[in-house]
Amino acid sequence: MPDQVVKRSAKIGLPPGSPVYVGKKKAEPIKITVIDYDEKNYHTKTVENIEETFPYRESQTVTWINIDGLHETPIVEKIGQHFDIHPLVVEDILSTHQRPKVEVFDHYIVVIFKMIQYEDYDEEIAQEQVSLVMGKNFVITFQEEAQRDVFDTLRSHIETGKGRIRKNGADYLGYAIMDIIVDHYFLVLERLGEEIEDLEDAVLENHDPSLVSRIHHLKRQLLELRKAIWPLREVISNLQRSESLLIKKATTHFIRDLYDHTIQVIDTLENYRERVSSVLDIYLTQMSNRLNEVMKVLTIISTIFIPLSFLAGVYGMNFDTGVSPLNMPELESPYGYVVFWIITLMVGGGLLLLFKKKRWL
Amino acid sequence: MPDQVVKRSAKIGLPPGSPVYVGKKKAEPIKITVIDYDEKNYHTKTVENIEETFPYRESQTVTWINIDGLHETPIVEKIGQHFDIHPLVVEDILSTHQRPKVEVFDHYIVVIFKMIQYEDYDEEIAQEQVSLVMGKNFVITFQEEAQRDVFDTLRSHIETGKGRIRKNGADYLGYAIMDIIVDHYFLVLERLGEEIEDLEDAVLENHDPSLVSRIHHLKRQLLELRKAIWPLREVISNLQRSESLLIKKATTHFIRDLYDHTIQVIDTLENYRERVSSVLDIYLTQMSNRLNEVMKVLTIISTIFIPLSFLAGVYGMNFDTGVSPLNMPELESPYGYVVFWIITLMVGGGLLLLFKKKRWL
Amino acid sequence: MPDQVVKRSAKIGLPPGSPVYVGKKKAEPIKITVIDYDEKNYHTKTVENIEETFPYRESQTVTWINIDGLHETPIVEKIGQHFDIHPLVVEDILSTHQRPKVEVFDHYIVVIFKMIQYEDYDEEIAQEQVSLVMGKNFVITFQEEAQRDVFDTLRSHIETGKGRIRKNGADYLGYAIMDIIVDHYFLVLERLGEEIEDLEDAVLENHDPSLVSRIHHLKRQLLELRKAIWPLREVISNLQRSESLLIKKATTHFIRDLYDHTIQVIDTLENYRERVSSVLDIYLTQMSNRLNEVMKVLTIISTIFIPLSFLAGVYGMNFDTGVSPLNMPELESPYGYVVFWIITLMVGGGLLLLFKKKRWL
Amino acid sequence: MPDQVVKRSAKIGLPPGSPVYVGKKKAEPIKITVIDYDEKNYHTKTVENIEETFPYRESQTVTWINIDGLHETPIVEKIGQHFDIHPLVVEDILSTHQRPKVEVFDHYIVVIFKMIQYEDYDEEIAQEQVSLVMGKNFVITFQEEAQRDVFDTLRSHIETGKGRIRKNGADYLGYAIMDIIVDHYFLVLERLGEEIEDLEDAVLENHDPSLVSRIHHLKRQLLELRKAIWPLREVISNLQRSESLLIKKATTHFIRDLYDHTIQVIDTLENYRERVSSVLDIYLTQMSNRLNEVMKVLTIISTIFIPLSFLAGVYGMNFDTGVSPLNMPELESPYGYVVFWIITLMVGGGLLLLFKKKRWL
Amino acid sequence: MPDQVVKRSAKIGLPPGSPVYVGKKKAEPIKITVIDYDEKNYHTKTVENIEETFPYRESQTVTWINIDGLHETPIVEKIGQHFDIHPLVVEDILSTHQRPKVEVFDHYIVVIFKMIQYEDYDEEIAQEQVSLVMGKNFVITFQEEAQRDVFDTLRSHIETGKGRIRKNGADYLGYAIMDIIVDHYFLVLERLGEEIEDLEDAVLENHDPSLVSRIHHLKRQLLELRKAIWPLREVISNLQRSESLLIKKATTHFIRDLYDHTIQVIDTLENYRERVSSVLDIYLTQMSNRLNEVMKVLTIISTIFIPLSFLAGVYGMNFDTGVSPLNMPELESPYGYVVFWIITLMVGGGLLLLFKKKRWL
Repeated sequence: MPDQVVKRSAKIGLPPGSPVYVGKKKAEPIKITVIDYDEKNYHTKTVENIEETFPYRESQTVTWINIDGLHETPIVEKIGQHFDIHPLVVEDILSTHQRPKVEVFDHYIVVIFKMIQYEDYDEEIAQEQVSLVMGKNFVITFQEEAQRDVFDTLRSHIETGKGRIRKNGADYLGYAIMDIIVDHYFLVLERLGEEIEDLEDAVLENHDPSLVSRIHHLKRQLLELRKAIWPLREVISNLQRSESLLIKKATTHFIRDLYDHTIQVIDTLENYRERVSSVLDIYLTQMSNRLNEVMKVLTIISTIFIPLSFLAGVYGMNFDTGVSPLNMPELESPYGYVVFWIITLMVGGGLLLLFKKKRWL
Repeated sequence: MPDQVVKRSAKIGLPPGSPVYVGKKKAEPIKITVIDYDEKNYHTKTVENIEETFPYRESQTVTWINIDGLHETPIVEKIGQHFDIHPLVVEDILSTHQRPKVEVFDHYIVVIFKMIQYEDYDEEIAQEQVSLVMGKNFVITFQEEAQRDVFDTLRSHIETGKGRIRKNGADYLGYAIMDIIVDHYFLVLERLGEEIEDLEDAVLENHDPSLVSRIHHLKRQLLELRKAIWPLREVISNLQRSESLLIKKATTHFIRDLYDHTIQVIDTLENYRERVSSVLDIYLTQMSNRLNEVMKVLTIISTIFIPLSFLAGVYGMNFDTGVSPLNMPELESPYGYVVFWIITLMVGGGLLLLFKKKRWL
Repeated sequence: MPDQVVKRSAKIGLPPGSPVYVGKKKAEPIKITVIDYDEKNYHTKTVENIEETFPYRESQTVTWINIDGLHETPIVEKIGQHFDIHPLVVEDILSTHQRPKVEVFDHYIVVIFKMIQYEDYDEEIAQEQVSLVMGKNFVITFQEEAQRDVFDTLRSHIETGKGRIRKNGADYLGYAIMDIIVDHYFLVLERLGEEIEDLEDAVLENHDPSLVSRIHHLKRQLLELRKAIWPLREVISNLQRSESLLIKKATTHFIRDLYDHTIQVIDTLENYRERVSSVLDIYLTQMSNRLNEVMKVLTIISTIFIPLSFLAGVYGMNFDTGVSPLNMPELESPYGYVVFWIITLMVGGGLLLLFKKKRWL
Repeated sequence: MPDQVVKRSAKIGLPPGSPVYVGKKKAEPIKITVIDYDEKNYHTKTVENIEETFPYRESQTVTWINIDGLHETPIVEKIGQHFDIHPLVVEDILSTHQRPKVEVFDHYIVVIFKMIQYEDYDEEIAQEQVSLVMGKNFVITFQEEAQRDVFDTLRSHIETGKGRIRKNGADYLGYAIMDIIVDHYFLVLERLGEEIEDLEDAVLENHDPSLVSRIHHLKRQLLELRKAIWPLREVISNLQRSESLLIKKATTHFIRDLYDHTIQVIDTLENYRERVSSVLDIYLTQMSNRLNEVMKVLTIISTIFIPLSFLAGVYGMNFDTGVSPLNMPELESPYGYVVFWIITLMVGGGLLLLFKKKRWL
Repeated sequence: MPDQVVKRSAKIGLPPGSPVYVGKKKAEPIKITVIDYDEKNYHTKTVENIEETFPYRESQTVTWINIDGLHETPIVEKIGQHFDIHPLVVEDILSTHQRPKVEVFDHYIVVIFKMIQYEDYDEEIAQEQVSLVMGKNFVITFQEEAQRDVFDTLRSHIETGKGRIRKNGADYLGYAIMDIIVDHYFLVLERLGEEIEDLEDAVLENHDPSLVSRIHHLKRQLLELRKAIWPLREVISNLQRSESLLIKKATTHFIRDLYDHTIQVIDTLENYRERVSSVLDIYLTQMSNRLNEVMKVLTIISTIFIPLSFLAGVYGMNFDTGVSPLNMPELESPYGYVVFWIITLMVGGGLLLLFKKKRWL
């Protein structure tokens, strides 16, 4: 229900930097999980008090603090204070309608972007804002909701030590988080691509009016996706060029790869957008085609029978044949009726031939 | 009434830099309010004579001089002279159709932009030009009208000392004023967003012709907003890069945040524009769909009954059956009428089946 | 008449730099006026021979030589030679279909652009090319025609010494000329804006087919204006960046203001273009709406009466009721006619209800 | 015939730099003409063997070698070898579907572009590729065909010494050739402009279906022109910035002028493109208007007469008035027929009034 | 069948740099061919084990290792390890939906792009990803499938020593491979160009509804091509500017030529896209034209006969003429029937004249 959403307008009039949560209100408590590892060790735990995460700021191991739920603003504020995060950044983390952006500070980098998942049950795309604060040896991620999350495989890689992740630092962890989110964009795009192909076939074959709302729905989804993904190009490009000391040279190459993926996502998105508007064009054209067909049928039937009905009407008139031989002599003629049918068949047949010639049939 | 508006054309032929008010003529006098504060002290007053504000130019406290109403040009000119503002800037302040712009001088910065409010009573967007002259320790704002104003919360923050504002200088005050205006853009956009969602639903469900004027109205509002907001991107970006000594380093970060907000406003605006044109497309498509439906009904009815009416017409003809056995022998047949109905039902039923097969039904 | 126009094709095959007049042929002689002034002195005269203007090249006062009419090419050539103007520039001055441009030479600056006026009598926009050659202390302007001119107020400012003009040099005079021309763009735009508003209202209310040609006319006018005004952005921007010694620092600020005005003109133009295409969309949509209305009326009438007419036709058939009791027994029944009307009213009323339910009524 | 055209696909699989002619096959031999001049001397001749042109490479006079026809590739190759032209350039000269381009080498500059002429007899635009190799004191031009050529006036200028050409070097000759080709673009555009004006008038007045193919034809011509002319902007701009020693400073100014002309051509082209799509819009709108008119006529006629026909049908029914007084008593009434006509006229008149009120008439 | 395709989504959750094949699954084994040559020697062989190719890494001759089939990932991985290719590059090589890209490393350059062929049997465009790894004296190419390949002519050039190829190094070989692929783009474009011309003619002549799906098909093909080709512009431009030591100066010129070809391909593609959307416009316009024609026929027939049918109906009414002389006296009149026909012919003729005047006929 929309009433449950705290809108941006709730913030009007507050001083800049005020930490106000903008998004869906929730009852469940915030969930905080900590994953701490280096090449040899690994442990994970769910903490109750946010203060338990503070010691990890200075530890030598890599720590990933994940916070699910932003509606308890004091918790987010406390993290902000302890980890020395600029109040405006905290405000941005809490504003879940934020445009994707990156900000590079001396001792941490903030990346805010959208996690996207295709929800099968209602064919909608769920967006969730993920904010990532990357320090020297910690990464803090903030998510809106606890249920949904795309990081499970990443967590298991860390646990099992698969891939490079345990051998690398917090910068690689940050990259891996962004990479898995961008990978999920492809998943969503694949689904939309299938829907578009469906529509392309459907639109050429039938003219179900419900197609209009499907096309419109798809258009809106693509528009929303675009709003979420488009700024990412700039975000990752800025990250690449930031020359921050927090990002090691080896990781730069991975970020370039991530940039390429983002471009590919955007390319595909634009391609889809063109295809959807092409589908709408085709739909309209097909509908015009069908209107033409319908009108032709009507015109053929009318053109044949309206004159003939007139003729039948004429011989249904009651002019008094007894008064004068001029009055409807045809009715008295022994061949009148036969001639009527001959004329009828000739007119009908002639018009049919004409329509055939005009290629209406 | 449009006659009350002084148009730009009133200025044609005047030498450049002539201070001429362009906008709605008004009877009420100009209202001048002064808010003067530093971290510890605060007082506010409404002054009668503009000369009372002059001493604040050199005071150590931060002073916000707000002038409501531009139609008494001599007052504005006097301020211009006392505060050493370039005559072309004074001209710009008075021209209320000005494009948003920033100009950076050595001892002051001028930002001209639009304050926007959604007026519920007539569903229109009210625009008002706000000019902001920011000196070392004063900010002068010029507004067109006294009634409407979005600064009340800001004034109370200053009075109560909430937030950072009392601890900062005139540059932060200037930022805060711009920030609150940009925040109101979001408010207006939220309203328009709701209207668009309404329209999107309405257009798929019914085909009320009044939707056209609503769509058109919305399109114009978005176009007007765009004209007012689009240049702001450049304005704030220029402000950011100006490297003026009047803006302290701490404030720069806030201005960057303001820039992000502006981009987000523009993004949303463009998104809305696309959605509105998509709505128009859908409306047209739905209308075509409906036309097709209507034409199909007409064609089905006509195709079934026109030939049958012809047949009925035939047996309504008055050919004299007595003259010859060739003349309408059907009429004499005891089963003639029954056969007629059988034919009628077969033709009608056959056509209905055909239409079903063609998926017209 | 188009034959009177010397087209660009007249120049094909001539060596580059050939001074050939391209434009409307005229009979009246060229009119040359000289205004000479400094802060204290002012005099004006109309000269017969172009040679009389030559001494002003070296005078200490500011001189504005205005030449109305370009069709006597030798006169223009003589000026070119005396004032040391590059032959290609002279060629450009004479080619009245020139794209607006600026060329900066060491001892003079040439600006070519369009003077635009709205002609009330035929609702057309009159374009005229104005070329401005600005030297150290003279400005030469070339116009195509003598009748029309937007400089009268400027002339009176010089005469009466109003504004800054008498206190400044030739660069300010050049700026003032350009400024007054750009100011007239706003006048023309105001007129077009009114026409657009008219159209927007008209299009929602009625469907007069003549609106199409009005929209088309407006579209063409905007396209022409755009061709004339768009390049000005670059022209004035180049002038601003030229760093020519001919332009004093004080004047630079005025040129920046002129640049802002140009941007505003272009913004408004683009805004108008969007509004006009939106108007065309609305017109088409309204027309579709009306077609739908018309078709619904036709379909309702036909759907109700075509079946009923068939029924009436049936009971107008002449099957011989004497032959067999199967032949039209209804006709013999005492309640036949009453039942017919009951059926008629039920069918008619039922269909009306159905249409109401389908919201066709 | 298309078979006569050697397509680009003929080159697939050949090593890069293979000199293969791509274009129309021709039987006539290649025609080589030499014009050799300096300020005082001038002579021209047609040579049989390409070798006769070789000595001009080192002569002090300016030499223009013009080659009409590219289908004898060995001749072109020989020139390439003698004048030291890069094999890839020779390949480009022979590929007549080349995109306009410039390549600047140390001792020569190659410019490849399109010569365009409007062919009156079939209303088509003929394109021909012209390649220009400009050395220190020679210019070699390659054309596809001998018949058509736009250089006659240039040749006569050289012969008669009109204009600057005899006083300048090969760089000015090269410029003059390009200038005359660009001048011819204006000629073609003037023709298309007239066609567009014709169409704009025609489309508002009548709805001849042949207009569609005319519009389409024009659209394609503009698209082709654009493909040929658009890259020229970059070509000439690159030439301008090349700082090649082969181009003297005096000539630079002329090239800048040429650049301005190119921009003007492109501007006009884009303007035309917009006008043509506007014409198509208007055509569609007019057609919708006409459909509306037609449908209104149909609906008015049907709405008036279909109910009345039903009424006439009713009184044509044969219910037996003898059986019961309920059976069609109207028929027996002495005023029945008169009342029928009164009803008819009232219904007809009433509907006409209604249509008038609805502004359908 | 789509199930056989390994989609990108198969990779979600794997650590970055995991070598996973994304594309069609295949049963045939990977085919590895080696061509080794220098100016004097040449030999070619097909190897079974990938290890046989390893010694060529250090040989002085130029070696071209071509791998057909990517579905056996371990083989590709082994090459990657031996030739020191970055794991992310190996991942890209295996992801056959990769966006074209170039990556320049110190000791090798990777170019990934699309090989395109027009398949006559199903009128589809086949895309295959080709990855090219260019080292100091080897080139490794990876293709998806073994059947199709555009390199045969290139292989024969190497074998026969035709052209420059045997005299140049690995950089020229790399260039030659790219060049032949880009050349094939022209082939495909030529085919599409023919299809477009076909459609342009067809659309003006008839209104076969199947044209819609042909247009749509073409649109999609162009969209796909664009996705494959557009990024190439940037790829080759980056290659040109890379200043890698692996590319000799002599080859640079060839790469510039390749760049020009790419631009030409893109230009043609954009031109085609515009033409196809123009074709759709024309189709819609023609269909509207035809609808207008059909409706006119219907309206003419209806307008003529519906009133006449009414008239005939009137005289078919059975008002009792015996009751009163007011009841249908026309029926008794000796000229009634003749007058009826005169009225009929006059009304019919009059309407025909009216239609002619309105240019409906």
